[in-house]
Amino acid sequence: MDVKFKNLTEAESFKKLVSFPTPDIKNILSAERISKCNINAGIGLDYNYSAKPVDEKLLKLFQQLSDEQQSVNKYKEILTGSIMNPGEKRMVLHHYTRGSHNIDLKEGVSDKINLYKEQLERFSEFAEKVHSGIIKGSTGAKIDTAVQIGIGGSDLGPRALYLALKGFLQVNGKKPFINCEFISNVDPDDASDVMSRINPETTLFIVVSKSGTTQETLTNTALVKNLIRSKSKSIDIAKHMIAVTGKGSPMENPTEFSNSFYIDDFIGGRYSSTSAVGGVILSLAFGSEIFKKLLEGAHASDKIALEQDILKNPPLLDALLSIYDRNILKTTTEAILPYSQALSRFPAHLQQLIMESNGKSVNLKGDAIKYETCPAIFGEPGTNGQHSFYQMLHQGTDIVPLKFIGFKESQQLYDIDFEGSTCQQKLNANLSAQITAFAVGQKDNNPNKNFPGGRTSDLLIGKRLLPETLGSLLAHFENRTMFQGFLWNINSFDQEGVQLGKKLANKVLSGKQEDPVLDAFSALFK
Amino acid sequence: MDVKFKNLTEAESFKKLVSFPTPDIKNILSAERISKCNINAGIGLDYNYSAKPVDEKLLKLFQQLSDEQQSVNKYKEILTGSIMNPGEKRMVLHHYTRGSHNIDLKEGVSDKINLYKEQLERFSEFAEKVHSGIIKGSTGAKIDTAVQIGIGGSDLGPRALYLALKGFLQVNGKKPFINCEFISNVDPDDASDVMSRINPETTLFIVVSKSGTTQETLTNTALVKNLIRSKSKSIDIAKHMIAVTGKGSPMENPTEFSNSFYIDDFIGGRYSSTSAVGGVILSLAFGSEIFKKLLEGAHASDKIALEQDILKNPPLLDALLSIYDRNILKTTTEAILPYSQALSRFPAHLQQLIMESNGKSVNLKGDAIKYETCPAIFGEPGTNGQHSFYQMLHQGTDIVPLKFIGFKESQQLYDIDFEGSTCQQKLNANLSAQITAFAVGQKDNNPNKNFPGGRTSDLLIGKRLLPETLGSLLAHFENRTMFQGFLWNINSFDQEGVQLGKKLANKVLSGKQEDPVLDAFSALFK
Repeated sequence: MDVKFKNLTEAESFKKLVSFPTPDIKNILSAERISKCNINAGIGLDYNYSAKPVDEKLLKLFQQLSDEQQSVNKYKEILTGSIMNPGEKRMVLHHYTRGSHNIDLKEGVSDKINLYKEQLERFSEFAEKVHSGIIKGSTGAKIDTAVQIGIGGSDLGPRALYLALKGFLQVNGKKPFINCEFISNVDPDDASDVMSRINPETTLFIVVSKSGTTQETLTNTALVKNLIRSKSKSIDIAKHMIAVTGKGSPMENPTEFSNSFYIDDFIGGRYSSTSAVGGVILSLAFGSEIFKKLLEGAHASDKIALEQDILKNPPLLDALLSIYDRNILKTTTEAILPYSQALSRFPAHLQQLIMESNGKSVNLKGDAIKYETCPAIFGEPGTNGQHSFYQMLHQGTDIVPLKFIGFKESQQLYDIDFEGSTCQQKLNANLSAQITAFAVGQKDNNPNKNFPGGRTSDLLIGKRLLPETLGSLLAHFENRTMFQGFLWNINSFDQEGVQLGKKLANKVLSGKQEDPVLDAFSALFK
Repeated sequence: MDVKFKNLTEAESFKKLVSFPTPDIKNILSAERISKCNINAGIGLDYNYSAKPVDEKLLKLFQQLSDEQQSVNKYKEILTGSIMNPGEKRMVLHHYTRGSHNIDLKEGVSDKINLYKEQLERFSEFAEKVHSGIIKGSTGAKIDTAVQIGIGGSDLGPRALYLALKGFLQVNGKKPFINCEFISNVDPDDASDVMSRINPETTLFIVVSKSGTTQETLTNTALVKNLIRSKSKSIDIAKHMIAVTGKGSPMENPTEFSNSFYIDDFIGGRYSSTSAVGGVILSLAFGSEIFKKLLEGAHASDKIALEQDILKNPPLLDALLSIYDRNILKTTTEAILPYSQALSRFPAHLQQLIMESNGKSVNLKGDAIKYETCPAIFGEPGTNGQHSFYQMLHQGTDIVPLKFIGFKESQQLYDIDFEGSTCQQKLNANLSAQITAFAVGQKDNNPNKNFPGGRTSDLLIGKRLLPETLGSLLAHFENRTMFQGFLWNINSFDQEGVQLGKKLANKVLSGKQEDPVLDAFSALFK
């Protein structure tokens, strides 16, 4: 590998950034800047960074930092199949679930890529057979529902994308091919709730676990089977169960699952929405053509991420801006604010993507680092958030960097004119107003009515939330997260921090712990 | 008024706290402490603060701080009807939506209290008439659906409570009387989506806006009416519309609404879940008996909040602990983590409640203050969060105070034994394990597998998520938020920070802005 790994604070360009003045957004924001700081970020998607506190001099230093940390070269190492997840000694291949790149591949990588392609074709065909009725339920009924049983990456991404596209087909009264539900939590109320809404005879259950050993997912599968049996004796349960798992996992079992689709260790859970993990359910819901459009959009964004010039590479520029916020301006949180109801659960997916990837305190060599990494991520759709936590964003004592997402057109295209403007115009008037209000503020002699401004934001702006635009948006954030990891010099692809809790939970369940504290906490629940 | 207002940093006891040593949770946590630091917080609800970094000496200082800031006396001023929302020159009377207190009332307060009682009886009766079929849809069909159109406090609280109780009735296959939906966002896709699922002939629309002028709510009402007309010409729309609003508001219009229920200016939106704002829809959904159980639980918590002794007053102690985290330990965020799928949207409600109430930078006199107030609040249900952002909570570079919520029993009572334990046992084993792992950590020579510990949490622990327990939980957080405000010396009941955005949005919509920046941002959406 010809890339070098260096802590952020050791980079010469970062040291320069520390003492470099930050421009006041109130002074630099102008109509000209707003139209100039707008770059293509994928299919039907632009990235506008005009309301971030950077000028040309800072951007030059950003470019130096990106070059010094070899951001794009490290991405190329990922694409070539180097072991870029050293903690788990794994390659990082999720980009190949959505397209190929003109790059030399390390030995064995082609086989993996072929597996992903093959699975895409297999589940596309499977979805078609379900839609056409060739594949039916075990009692002969047509399948009208799919329930995904999975947690974390097997839940948040697919669920967010399903909700994001569900309305897309509703134009002119069309509906998704298949209605989807999700069961994730080991709380039995989650499965009970979903099962009370569905008819098992017309339902396919998609059990998703790469390792085939995820406690929550296996437990929920057992609970679901029990509930099916209690509802209907005549069902052949295995015919209603399909698996998405690793080849050779304990879940690869044809007596339990009528069909299996495969992923492998080189696609991390939180990066797996474009693999079979998201692909099976989304193809069942909307048809494989729409899922392939989503892949197309993601691939377009992956190609843009190859640009060395940060002003042509939005995920990289976005990552640099976020590191400037976090490590120079010392912000601790970040709000993701989509002005689109369809993206209601997109912030929850990004919360996992970003916080699980970059909530680390050790560098790629495994040494402790001494600078801040991932902030806390939260968000809800606008305009809802305006009537909720925006008070704190406008007038609170901490500055929260804001990431807005908006679209020119509504997704479902249905709209009305009310008091001189449409709903979509009102939605976007609010979005423009908020960006301006946060950045510019408004002086008032009454401190309670004073808006200090200087609260900066950026904006991902789409034409309409089409499948390909959603794909670009998803990959933008995946690649931004990857670039953040390169800049911070951390491994964005492992998650050692989840292990201790699992271990202690198993200790409790085994009944064999001899840990008085753990014992006393569990006693509270008896 | 015989209470005095003092900035937090001017309190003598706070000055002592600043230089006082913080005990290391790893040293003080013990089985004895866990069972000792557990106090009653309402009906079927305890508060356990054993994993917070406080010892007896600190608790004594906390008591002094509470006394010095006159926390409980200020709460009594609220109950007596003093103008405790000086920014808007209003009383704060939401506690009276759920019970009365043995306290002298200021002039005119009885009338307000009588209004709340009267409305409770009116909407209880209304719900019964809908359930029994005395009140029907305009085409003679039985009502089976209610859609609440509201935003912010008219949406988040009622929605969170509806989801929290929906499963409660599902035991043994029972279902809520009426299925509920919510429309909030001015994004037209939100209303389109809901309307695609419902039959207007069997639906009641509850339009909720105290002022009767909320842009999003009026726009959505117009859009909904349009969609009803396009679906069914025979419907008499007004017969399907009811209002929850202030007396004399523009929405008090019998030609538009077949029935109106009232709130007033002394119940803030984010504190209105126990008024008609939450009461109409929850009584329709579950029957007024269940709603009254919720009120009973909230009232029990309101009474506990009157205790001067912080060790008998969980919302007050909780507030003091949060101020210790924020202003002494300098944390910036707070995660709310319910181990209960039914509470999936409870964190979103608390995000509004806390951040809109206390995200302020001016004191009650209107002077700017120089210390930190509300942190950013986020959260998702466990165990889902464990597979998402917990990585950052365990091994990230910032400490995030954690607030866990758990229940001994599942809400719906359906469970199975799988591999030696039930789902509920697994859920709670995970919760106990997480509290322990965060607090105690685990040393490892490999920094990537090292858990530093010292990440403190507290726990609200219930027997089962019954309506009365939910009521106590809700009021616990309302009263904790109020006490935080008293300690910080800020007004938790106004929200000036939402005004500028509204004003600028209207400027955009009027087309008359002469603000080049605002103009350029809005041009991006054309």
